[in-house]
Amino acid sequence: MDLHILDHRLRVTSISKSGLVHFTHPLIKLIFLRNRTRCKFFSLTETPENYTVVLDEEGFKELQPSEHLQVETSTWLPLNVVSNGNVSSSSQAVGVTKIAKSVIAPLAQQHVSVFMLSTYQTDFILVKEKDLSVVISTLEEEFNIYKEVEGESVPVGCQDVSNGLQKNGKEAIRPTVHPVLIPQNQFCVMSLDPDTLPAIATTLIDVLFYSNGPNEDTQSSPSKDCIKFFSFSLIDGYISLVMDTEAQRQFPADLLFTSSSGELWRMVRIGGQPLGFDECGIVAQISQPLADCDISAYYISTFSFDHALVPEEDIVSVTDMLQHHRKEAATS
Amino acid sequence: MDLHILDHRLRVTSISKSGLVHFTHPLIKLIFLRNRTRCKFFSLTETPENYTVVLDEEGFKELQPSEHLQVETSTWLPLNVVSNGNVSSSSQAVGVTKIAKSVIAPLAQQHVSVFMLSTYQTDFILVKEKDLSVVISTLEEEFNIYKEVEGESVPVGCQDVSNGLQKNGKEAIRPTVHPVLIPQNQFCVMSLDPDTLPAIATTLIDVLFYSNGPNEDTQSSPSKDCIKFFSFSLIDGYISLVMDTEAQRQFPADLLFTSSSGELWRMVRIGGQPLGFDECGIVAQISQPLADCDISAYYISTFSFDHALVPEEDIVSVTDMLQHHRKEAATS
Repeated sequence: MDLHILDHRLRVTSISKSGLVHFTHPLIKLIFLRNRTRCKFFSLTETPENYTVVLDEEGFKELQPSEHLQVETSTWLPLNVVSNGNVSSSSQAVGVTKIAKSVIAPLAQQHVSVFMLSTYQTDFILVKEKDLSVVISTLEEEFNIYKEVEGESVPVGCQDVSNGLQKNGKEAIRPTVHPVLIPQNQFCVMSLDPDTLPAIATTLIDVLFYSNGPNEDTQSSPSKDCIKFFSFSLIDGYISLVMDTEAQRQFPADLLFTSSSGELWRMVRIGGQPLGFDECGIVAQISQPLADCDISAYYISTFSFDHALVPEEDIVSVTDMLQHHRKEAATS
Repeated sequence: MDLHILDHRLRVTSISKSGLVHFTHPLIKLIFLRNRTRCKFFSLTETPENYTVVLDEEGFKELQPSEHLQVETSTWLPLNVVSNGNVSSSSQAVGVTKIAKSVIAPLAQQHVSVFMLSTYQTDFILVKEKDLSVVISTLEEEFNIYKEVEGESVPVGCQDVSNGLQKNGKEAIRPTVHPVLIPQNQFCVMSLDPDTLPAIATTLIDVLFYSNGPNEDTQSSPSKDCIKFFSFSLIDGYISLVMDTEAQRQFPADLLFTSSSGELWRMVRIGGQPLGFDECGIVAQISQPLADCDISAYYISTFSFDHALVPEEDIVSVTDMLQHHRKEAATS
């Protein structure tokens, strides 16, 4: 399989809930006005805590410093696994499950922290730029690694990495087992022809920027067991949307499309306290057992917490599996 | 003819050019998200100086106080002349010309200052609430006056106006003759089915909120003889747009409609220094001679200047007329 190091230098930021109004102008530009920006990688995810915005340096320039904006200090690079058809796989699973053993687990073992961003189209594995040499030396046995440079894919070998052998310490650290939350809402993972984005602009603006108004509580009182979660990304011209079925109903049914199976997904939120950006192995903790059971999963990291999405029909077995895992961790 | 005092209490405000970004959130709500606001009267006009926003009290609540926001102290009430078919008129002219002699001139004589807002559908004559009794006693000979109260039209007579006879001083004051500017761009006055507003949302957002970016100068270098002027209003569910032909080209041609004649208009901007809100007779100065010549005109007041729009084919005679008027004023 091939691993591509994409030609985007990313920042991971967070806008406070109350601060979103101050960022409406740049965010609407980044989402809707492609001709006005050179940003090629943009992702906005609303969670109950905040809005996580991941974007390239061109996009980051649009965000004015503010008390409402938190910026993670690292530059992150997105990796992308491309199945080049040479390797047959018995797995039918999609998403992060497919790369759990080949990418996620080895990086966790090398103490490389990752920030995951699954979309409708693919799964981006974000790693810190400073960890790149470790990433390459860790993954080069399994993958042909290419670095995308101005649209060209250039092969990367160990010889290109001056400090490729300076891997992080290898001694096993018992990973923290984070509490999980399993909200009741059902999610869908959708896409949209970029040319029809204007047709859903007012709905998308409404959902993204005005759904937390003071009127919202009275208009719809979602169950307390549901979670606010909405993700929009526009990456290299491809749009991906993750929303629950309540939000989906606000959009015209004929414009958004999902995979042919029209699957619904349930969420496993990972973390009781904000996870930070230095801990390793969080994605691996979830994706490894999912891979063992061959259960598909999307995985979306945000500024505070991680979120796995698993098929609705698998949520009971996933819940059992996580409980089992937890007990094991407690008794070992 | 009937004169209706509409059931809107309006504020006239101005947002600085550099301050617009801070008002993107409330303005997009007021323009596009009808379900989220009870504002029924909203008008936004961009001029080279600033953005003039006229809106009712429900809308005004959405604008947070800011160094970028200027608010005229008065409450303004919109008047509207309704031709009830009983009065035949030989005039074919439309717009402010039709009401020049019956409304504009008498109010100017009574030293009532007016703020005009012509739209595709009609012409709103805004007067200060404190002047209402003078307005009624001035116009009740010519008009059946109705006050709209919660959707009902209630007749208003002199007896309803306690201080109806306290007209402003009647002595003639020689009006200031303001310099005029006649830019080269051609304007169109257009409308749009409110249900198709979402279809032009991204274009309208682009034009309103992003057309003054640093890139703008390089992308299109409009002639120095052209003026930046764009007006959007959403009043009682009706949309009106005034834009020049360059802006018009950015919109899909099949959604916006104009009067069947598809006329183009030229602008006469009135005022060298900002006009303020107390001077009377400014509209009358222009509309009276236009009425004498039966030349149609739209008229849009903004926070700093007034703007008349006259048919393209009449601009030469209007220019001559204004020069003649100016000479007369200088020599009398």
